[in-house]
Amino acid sequence: MATELAVALTTEDDLLSRQELRARLLAVGEARYHHRHPFHVRMHQGELTRGQLQAWALNRYYYQSRIPIKDALLLAKSDDPAFRRTWRKRILDHDGDQDGYGGVEKWIQLAEATGLDRSSVISYRGILPGVIFAVDAYLALVRDSSLLVAVASSLTELFSRDLISLRMDKMRLHYPYLIPGLAYFEGRLTQAPEDAAFALDYVSTHARTAAEQQQVIRALERKCEILWAQLDAIDYAYVEPGYIPPGCFVPGESSSAASKTR
Amino acid sequence: MATELAVALTTEDDLLSRQELRARLLAVGEARYHHRHPFHVRMHQGELTRGQLQAWALNRYYYQSRIPIKDALLLAKSDDPAFRRTWRKRILDHDGDQDGYGGVEKWIQLAEATGLDRSSVISYRGILPGVIFAVDAYLALVRDSSLLVAVASSLTELFSRDLISLRMDKMRLHYPYLIPGLAYFEGRLTQAPEDAAFALDYVSTHARTAAEQQQVIRALERKCEILWAQLDAIDYAYVEPGYIPPGCFVPGESSSAASKTR
Repeated sequence: MATELAVALTTEDDLLSRQELRARLLAVGEARYHHRHPFHVRMHQGELTRGQLQAWALNRYYYQSRIPIKDALLLAKSDDPAFRRTWRKRILDHDGDQDGYGGVEKWIQLAEATGLDRSSVISYRGILPGVIFAVDAYLALVRDSSLLVAVASSLTELFSRDLISLRMDKMRLHYPYLIPGLAYFEGRLTQAPEDAAFALDYVSTHARTAAEQQQVIRALERKCEILWAQLDAIDYAYVEPGYIPPGCFVPGESSSAASKTR
Repeated sequence: MATELAVALTTEDDLLSRQELRARLLAVGEARYHHRHPFHVRMHQGELTRGQLQAWALNRYYYQSRIPIKDALLLAKSDDPAFRRTWRKRILDHDGDQDGYGGVEKWIQLAEATGLDRSSVISYRGILPGVIFAVDAYLALVRDSSLLVAVASSLTELFSRDLISLRMDKMRLHYPYLIPGLAYFEGRLTQAPEDAAFALDYVSTHARTAAEQQQVIRALERKCEILWAQLDAIDYAYVEPGYIPPGCFVPGESSSAASKTR
């Protein structure tokens, strides 16, 4: 109720307080974050086949593999060593170091738990063009926008902890063969909230005009669209109606798990 | 058969003759051009509702509106005045001149024939993010690639005449309310083959190595993926299963024909 009230009482021309801005951002997530997407709903109800989870893990690998690249593009926008030191943690989280694997490697392990070969995952063969276009739009958004907008586009992490907690419970329940691959989500349970808190504080401090605050809100909406569109493409190709575009991954077809033409 | 033979007898390392390259490009179109997409099949069988055709016309307007921008990006890559003079015709075809409307305006008329308001079409409100990401990938491909690859990405026009002829027949038959809006397709019946012949001659002359010929083939494949992914997004949102993403056009909802938030 408090959130709805703060949203209702402001217009695009008003400079929002930190609390009002936060309420607006939370309202965007409630309406548009992909926890509401039908594909995730099915996943959590245990309705997906192993082949459908393979298609999801394979396609989402393209997104995961671009995250440290996105973070490097973002880091390159800042001339503040303190900011860069903080943001650098994200690259380390995904790429790892001598002490352990990073998120990209952990995602490959999740894909392996679905039954995919590592080599077919890291080949990028058979990825849906719709997923590639959405993820590349994220890189372009970060590369071509201000640092403020780039940071704001990461704010979906405000919502990821709840989704990941739910997903881990449901995967253990409905798809126990995935349990060896859940390390990625374990890591994100603590990383995502830390990252989100920093980003929220950053945009609250650096969006100093109503127009800049609107840019922040719009960036979060666009990022939600980028996540949602990936699931649209996966759901369309592999669940309902199940029309796989030419050249894309076909579950159960050969050990390379993807056509040779992509 | 001649096409299949030429395709079968070449590998990626061979320099193809003009005829072999043409055969390879035609084979790409046969397998991957969007004349095969389920949404187009439904359209031609008369199975689409007026609201579904509205959604198609509205979303495809984003593609149409980017075409002259794409052509300007491409024109800017050439330092040959003769090439630029020839390619300039495409911008004129879409933007028009004092003697008549161009293709962009004619597409708006098609959208109006579906029952949409002109103002809602040109507002770009309610466009599917999946369509935006695919079309923007086309602009990025042309902007960031060589002139050769950019020209090759236009080669889908080799296949458009047959699709447009069929579509016009089927629209007159199944959706007679669209007849006042068919001027766009009338124009493309002659423009597309002229443009395609020039582009095919250009890539045949300027792809001088096997690697460059493979770039040309891959560019056409990617362009087919860009067209296909747009229909995936439209079909998913408005036909089957019909899950409209947050903030996108809802057929029959208000005169502005799109939500206020996009």
